[in-house]
Amino acid sequence: MKKHHSISASVIPQSRLHILSSKEMKQLSKASKSNLYDILRRCALAVLNCGSHIDDTTKILEKYNDFDISVVLQSRGIVLEVANAPKHAFVGDEMITGIRELLFSVLRDILFANSEVLTKKERFDLSTTSGTTNAVFHILRNAQCFIPGKLPNMIVCWGGHSIQRNEYEYTKKVGYHLGLRGMDICTGCGPGAMKGPMKGATIGHTKQRHKDGRYVGITEPGIIAAESPNPIVNELVVMPDIEKRLEAFVRTAHGIIVFPGGVGTAEEILYLLGLLLHPDNEDISFPLIFTAPEESADYFTRIDEFIRFTLGYEACKLYKIIVGDAEKVATILAEDMKEVTEQREKIQDAYYFNWSLNISREFQEPFAPTHENIASLSLYRDQTPYKLAANLRRVFSAIVAGNVKEEGLLAIKEYGPYKISGDKELMQALDALLTSFTEQGRMKIDTEVYNPCYEVID
Amino acid sequence: MKKHHSISASVIPQSRLHILSSKEMKQLSKASKSNLYDILRRCALAVLNCGSHIDDTTKILEKYNDFDISVVLQSRGIVLEVANAPKHAFVGDEMITGIRELLFSVLRDILFANSEVLTKKERFDLSTTSGTTNAVFHILRNAQCFIPGKLPNMIVCWGGHSIQRNEYEYTKKVGYHLGLRGMDICTGCGPGAMKGPMKGATIGHTKQRHKDGRYVGITEPGIIAAESPNPIVNELVVMPDIEKRLEAFVRTAHGIIVFPGGVGTAEEILYLLGLLLHPDNEDISFPLIFTAPEESADYFTRIDEFIRFTLGYEACKLYKIIVGDAEKVATILAEDMKEVTEQREKIQDAYYFNWSLNISREFQEPFAPTHENIASLSLYRDQTPYKLAANLRRVFSAIVAGNVKEEGLLAIKEYGPYKISGDKELMQALDALLTSFTEQGRMKIDTEVYNPCYEVID
Amino acid sequence: MKKHHSISASVIPQSRLHILSSKEMKQLSKASKSNLYDILRRCALAVLNCGSHIDDTTKILEKYNDFDISVVLQSRGIVLEVANAPKHAFVGDEMITGIRELLFSVLRDILFANSEVLTKKERFDLSTTSGTTNAVFHILRNAQCFIPGKLPNMIVCWGGHSIQRNEYEYTKKVGYHLGLRGMDICTGCGPGAMKGPMKGATIGHTKQRHKDGRYVGITEPGIIAAESPNPIVNELVVMPDIEKRLEAFVRTAHGIIVFPGGVGTAEEILYLLGLLLHPDNEDISFPLIFTAPEESADYFTRIDEFIRFTLGYEACKLYKIIVGDAEKVATILAEDMKEVTEQREKIQDAYYFNWSLNISREFQEPFAPTHENIASLSLYRDQTPYKLAANLRRVFSAIVAGNVKEEGLLAIKEYGPYKISGDKELMQALDALLTSFTEQGRMKIDTEVYNPCYEVID
Amino acid sequence: MKKHHSISASVIPQSRLHILSSKEMKQLSKASKSNLYDILRRCALAVLNCGSHIDDTTKILEKYNDFDISVVLQSRGIVLEVANAPKHAFVGDEMITGIRELLFSVLRDILFANSEVLTKKERFDLSTTSGTTNAVFHILRNAQCFIPGKLPNMIVCWGGHSIQRNEYEYTKKVGYHLGLRGMDICTGCGPGAMKGPMKGATIGHTKQRHKDGRYVGITEPGIIAAESPNPIVNELVVMPDIEKRLEAFVRTAHGIIVFPGGVGTAEEILYLLGLLLHPDNEDISFPLIFTAPEESADYFTRIDEFIRFTLGYEACKLYKIIVGDAEKVATILAEDMKEVTEQREKIQDAYYFNWSLNISREFQEPFAPTHENIASLSLYRDQTPYKLAANLRRVFSAIVAGNVKEEGLLAIKEYGPYKISGDKELMQALDALLTSFTEQGRMKIDTEVYNPCYEVID
Repeated sequence: MKKHHSISASVIPQSRLHILSSKEMKQLSKASKSNLYDILRRCALAVLNCGSHIDDTTKILEKYNDFDISVVLQSRGIVLEVANAPKHAFVGDEMITGIRELLFSVLRDILFANSEVLTKKERFDLSTTSGTTNAVFHILRNAQCFIPGKLPNMIVCWGGHSIQRNEYEYTKKVGYHLGLRGMDICTGCGPGAMKGPMKGATIGHTKQRHKDGRYVGITEPGIIAAESPNPIVNELVVMPDIEKRLEAFVRTAHGIIVFPGGVGTAEEILYLLGLLLHPDNEDISFPLIFTAPEESADYFTRIDEFIRFTLGYEACKLYKIIVGDAEKVATILAEDMKEVTEQREKIQDAYYFNWSLNISREFQEPFAPTHENIASLSLYRDQTPYKLAANLRRVFSAIVAGNVKEEGLLAIKEYGPYKISGDKELMQALDALLTSFTEQGRMKIDTEVYNPCYEVID
Repeated sequence: MKKHHSISASVIPQSRLHILSSKEMKQLSKASKSNLYDILRRCALAVLNCGSHIDDTTKILEKYNDFDISVVLQSRGIVLEVANAPKHAFVGDEMITGIRELLFSVLRDILFANSEVLTKKERFDLSTTSGTTNAVFHILRNAQCFIPGKLPNMIVCWGGHSIQRNEYEYTKKVGYHLGLRGMDICTGCGPGAMKGPMKGATIGHTKQRHKDGRYVGITEPGIIAAESPNPIVNELVVMPDIEKRLEAFVRTAHGIIVFPGGVGTAEEILYLLGLLLHPDNEDISFPLIFTAPEESADYFTRIDEFIRFTLGYEACKLYKIIVGDAEKVATILAEDMKEVTEQREKIQDAYYFNWSLNISREFQEPFAPTHENIASLSLYRDQTPYKLAANLRRVFSAIVAGNVKEEGLLAIKEYGPYKISGDKELMQALDALLTSFTEQGRMKIDTEVYNPCYEVID
Repeated sequence: MKKHHSISASVIPQSRLHILSSKEMKQLSKASKSNLYDILRRCALAVLNCGSHIDDTTKILEKYNDFDISVVLQSRGIVLEVANAPKHAFVGDEMITGIRELLFSVLRDILFANSEVLTKKERFDLSTTSGTTNAVFHILRNAQCFIPGKLPNMIVCWGGHSIQRNEYEYTKKVGYHLGLRGMDICTGCGPGAMKGPMKGATIGHTKQRHKDGRYVGITEPGIIAAESPNPIVNELVVMPDIEKRLEAFVRTAHGIIVFPGGVGTAEEILYLLGLLLHPDNEDISFPLIFTAPEESADYFTRIDEFIRFTLGYEACKLYKIIVGDAEKVATILAEDMKEVTEQREKIQDAYYFNWSLNISREFQEPFAPTHENIASLSLYRDQTPYKLAANLRRVFSAIVAGNVKEEGLLAIKEYGPYKISGDKELMQALDALLTSFTEQGRMKIDTEVYNPCYEVID
Repeated sequence: MKKHHSISASVIPQSRLHILSSKEMKQLSKASKSNLYDILRRCALAVLNCGSHIDDTTKILEKYNDFDISVVLQSRGIVLEVANAPKHAFVGDEMITGIRELLFSVLRDILFANSEVLTKKERFDLSTTSGTTNAVFHILRNAQCFIPGKLPNMIVCWGGHSIQRNEYEYTKKVGYHLGLRGMDICTGCGPGAMKGPMKGATIGHTKQRHKDGRYVGITEPGIIAAESPNPIVNELVVMPDIEKRLEAFVRTAHGIIVFPGGVGTAEEILYLLGLLLHPDNEDISFPLIFTAPEESADYFTRIDEFIRFTLGYEACKLYKIIVGDAEKVATILAEDMKEVTEQREKIQDAYYFNWSLNISREFQEPFAPTHENIASLSLYRDQTPYKLAANLRRVFSAIVAGNVKEEGLLAIKEYGPYKISGDKELMQALDALLTSFTEQGRMKIDTEVYNPCYEVID
């Protein structure tokens, strides 16, 4: 039975980075008391499952319940042995090189985060802003994401993983024009708006004979199974949680494009606007474009209205909306890169890591999407805008969990939909927005009927 | 006026190959009595016009009638100065690197063919088989197309430049699966079936981190304007004429895929079957696959019938037809490569150039598509199959000229459609095939009504 | 005055490895309470002083007493600013690239050892064998010294930094023949026998077009000033102390050559023989060759006698002595590499790090060369040979400190020569050996009269 | 017997440049009526014999009289099969990579010169200045010696192949300082002053991590056996004759250093001064330095006197003499490179080929060193200086032939020494110079007693 869809193999890393000590190998073994093996197995499976169209984590884990992975020392270096892995990660019996790379990136980050960052309180005090930022910096540095001397050109693309064909084609076009202009792409991995720009940029880079194009994917163990990185990604970073992942995005980005998406996208938008609305970040130059093809113009009209209504007119000045003009998006960003470069030089901040961006604790602290936490969110319009943005962000974060993450799915199964409450007008606006997402089929991939994981109570 | 669509620039080559002597620069100048300048200008314009959707050579030449090009010596090396070039060859005011490469390839081949090959009768006797083959070899070698030691993996893809969306998507898929298996692509340049496989292979190669993927385009001055090379092509060769171009295809191919196309594709099929039917080539292992998506299955049914009717059952054994299974095409060819490798080793023939393939004079001699030549073709079924294939090939060659080449277009304008005559049944079969091409819109790109450039007289 | 021999400059790293967090930069600053700045300054000065003929640390520090160094963040990455640096590290006003690399290696290792290894007791328990070995492993890994998949070919060369011209020429010849055979070189940095093999191998590698030849230098802060790395070294590692440096040598070596030297060389010989005599290491394949030109044959005759007398005949079976045949040395080692490869594969040990070599605590614990410690060494022949070797090693280690290291020089200045005592015959043998070193001018570089830093008391 | 010093092997090229057509392989075969096989065999043997200390061509040919070479086609490309080749070209049974490269360079140049240049009168009219220069250009271009965009940095080093140890060490030092400054080296191949600068530059380039250092050797079939290229040479060009070799030197040089040498060196000096004295070259910036260690200062004193006496004071202004200061030589040339760069840009001449240097026919026409030709040379001081230089150059050229070239050695054997005559004072000066060469042992390598191959008749 298994023969049809799974395969076992030994996989050798290509880089000299992947060398483990005996102690590290023990930590990763099934026998170890740490939970590293579990995280590794789950993330590895996600990587191997790339290209699949399932975004339900529990289904994937079930389908490959006999999947196994272990690290072995050979004279030539370490080797990963995978058993019963998804067959589509291979061509014949050889693993696709890109997937092999991703697998070792997962190994690297899980090991580093756990043995060098999260467990060393005296070095990284994660209860402070600077300690958390330092942790994010070290994980990214260990993943060799920083290239000194490289001028600002990293465009983070956000947007849905479940989007329509024409939206997908549009993200490819934007990627293509960015690639032609030598810009690199960073997304959250997965299909849809996170894959299209990379594919487009690949063609753009190829036409420009730009052999070092970067396709950076930043993910975290909770989401990776639902949004598995496609093998074009040539730099994968697994951050420990969603908040550090978001921090990684905004500190490495030189500009951000948002494509149509669903709740995850809305979460990202609110996170970023919340940051930029903070008084400390007033002077930061941060190019931000919302863009969609003609046919999907409505999506950003709705978002724009919701932002104006909740966060006010100032928030709307932080982004540009461009409809149906992929080349213009790229041209504007190419121009913006000069400004970003100048600013970094002026304030002596690194190109590769935006140290000067202030991220207040509201945005750094992990938010556990329990029914209790959600119920107690302060969702009232009479707050400082950046604080309201922080709370709205958490709402969307919870819905993402309830839709696709394992912990969320289990919680919903047990306790029913999340209850979201706050001031009446705000609740109505929120409900309208969420309903429009559902109507546009932006909630889940490959699902004919969407069962909301939430209830808005006004 | 010109500002809107044209641009002038100085272009520097990236390779150390592009160095000219003073004498060579003189030969290329407008002032020179040779016609090299004209050929260079025309081919350069074609290359710069890539991505355009015009396939009518005269229209292109007209639109950019003030386009100019010249070679200049600077201390750092030669520089190409282009004036009033198509704007879409540039990003901002910088020429796309891939196009820049193509431009210098054009320069290299035109110069070499004319000053080292065509004009040196004592060295290359083009009236003989071996002299012609030697000329083809030298032009390809000068273009650095041969990589000693590289195992057979070059798949030549033929097919229409004007194909439907789903056919195009299918050619991309096939290219993708070839790329995943490390195979390289060679086509005749231009859009459609000649671009799709390269685009697909680019993604396949990227996923395999295969940085040296080869996207070879082989063209000739008469066709290049109609089928301008897209900038993914990273090795462009301009052969002196259509017959040497075809010889270059079959001597460098390790396998050939034919996608749906029009008359050009039919020409290529007949050329290749004609070769393989020759008694001397009986033992040559030459993988050949005709493939199309489900919806276009009918195309090859018609071709297959025509071949069976004209060349007989033996001819049909030379190819496989695969419908709607892109991965299978790639898997079969990957397997076939082993056989080709073994055979080359057994008979001590080079991987990079199929010396042992016999190409008789019928297939080597340039065929001028004049009304007279066409009228006098021997189109009767009672010939040795390979000779009939040669003559049928010429018919299709003429129709290609009449559809898109400058000389053909002018001849038709002056003397009306070509008259094609021969034995009745054959003429009916031919007419049926050609009519089916017209009905399927396979004759010309972007043309609502097709005015046939031929009349079949039975 | 300073203008004649010093220069100030800003230096940019070339590798993407050199990126520091704000916290790390603070640790390295003069203002920091850590002593990292002092170690950095001292090691940096040593690196910049390469090519000089002074091996007296205090003299160097005095000569460049206004030398200063600091790490600065710029948008393009970190920059090292050096003030009043030795002029011979520059060509014109640009620092020699090789020296620049060494400088950043120093920075990398000092920071890593101090912030990630030495100060993290719960991670690296340096009071245990495995904790210490793990520390050595991590420092080497962080320096990217491990190349998975690379077959055994690393030859460690030991020998004097103050040797005669013909001995130096001989070390070059041996290096040349090693280089011709694709072997890499690792030494302790500095002039003489530590530079010659690298220079020779450079020519050998060049003739073989071997562009990735490795010239590894392993040093430690106490010795680096006296034996500054020459800029051929393309991988420099600064280990925290002499014992970890020795451990780094033996765990990365696939074979060791000893050239004539002085007390430092004797220390290394005794260290290695001590290890190999340990019962746990009985089965380890460890190629070891003592070699000298004809004229210096006597040196190893004396060493050989001393070993036979102190450690016994078994110890002598661990090495081969080859006189005046550079090519033979290389040929034998090339052959030995196959055996080492086989053994590592058989016992599943890594090529790049000899985990299975047992290093007992005697050889791992830092030995502080105080007068008291030296006086209390157990120097009697009725011990297990490997224990006697360990103690004799300490004697030589102390004399090295007394000759060239700052701490030793100061101790001798204050308390007079070290007193070495033990059983009479052993003391006589030791005295004879040391005297022969003095007579052969092997004690210090550029010194006409040698004042012994020790007294042998029998 | 042969086993001791010879070996047979198959050698594969590493570059994609070495691909031959069937026709070309036939031309090179023993069976071909062309003399290509003989030239190839002789040059190949010279290359394989590198490192030997014999400079007598006939002796080498005798010693390896059973040496054989042939070109064979395999599927992976062409292969060179050598039989009974000098063993020192191998390490074990594998040919040293550098020597392998040289072998294929020899093959490339002999084939190209003979099939594309020398035999094509209508293309390269070697009876004219421009035809000859064009031939030189094409041979160098085919050897890929031109790197567009590379700034002037090629230093040609001339000097003796048979020099003293201290002179050799000095040439290494000069090379080292040139290498540290990023300059490349070009010499005539062979030992002594032609090897030292390359060896030195290798170390300089290594310290600067300059991986693309160029070590160009320019030779010709008549001299290659006596001055076989050492394998550091990574670009070897075999010009058809001595005059084209000299032209290749001066057209690619951006500066020239002359070290002490013998008659060959004197020939080169007179050739260059003759060129630079020509009125057409008055404005050409051509850095020229004569340099020697202190102990050999006398050599250039004598040359300087001879030049002043024969060609006058103007000629002496064309060069600088620097004694015993290797770094100064490099510093001056590094400075001069800027001037050369500026001049080339001003007159729009290529960096890589000095088109604007006029080389009149006197210096281009091959001079056959027959007794008759030598006897009829016009050696009188009342000539235009550049014409006298041309004739004196021929005298030295003849003596080189009489000393080491096969044709010269045979002629001397048959007809006795060359007779050189002219005006009395000139003859005395010449005799004095030649005698000083003999006294200084600069005539032949490894020869205790020198039998002059000439007689000066005044």
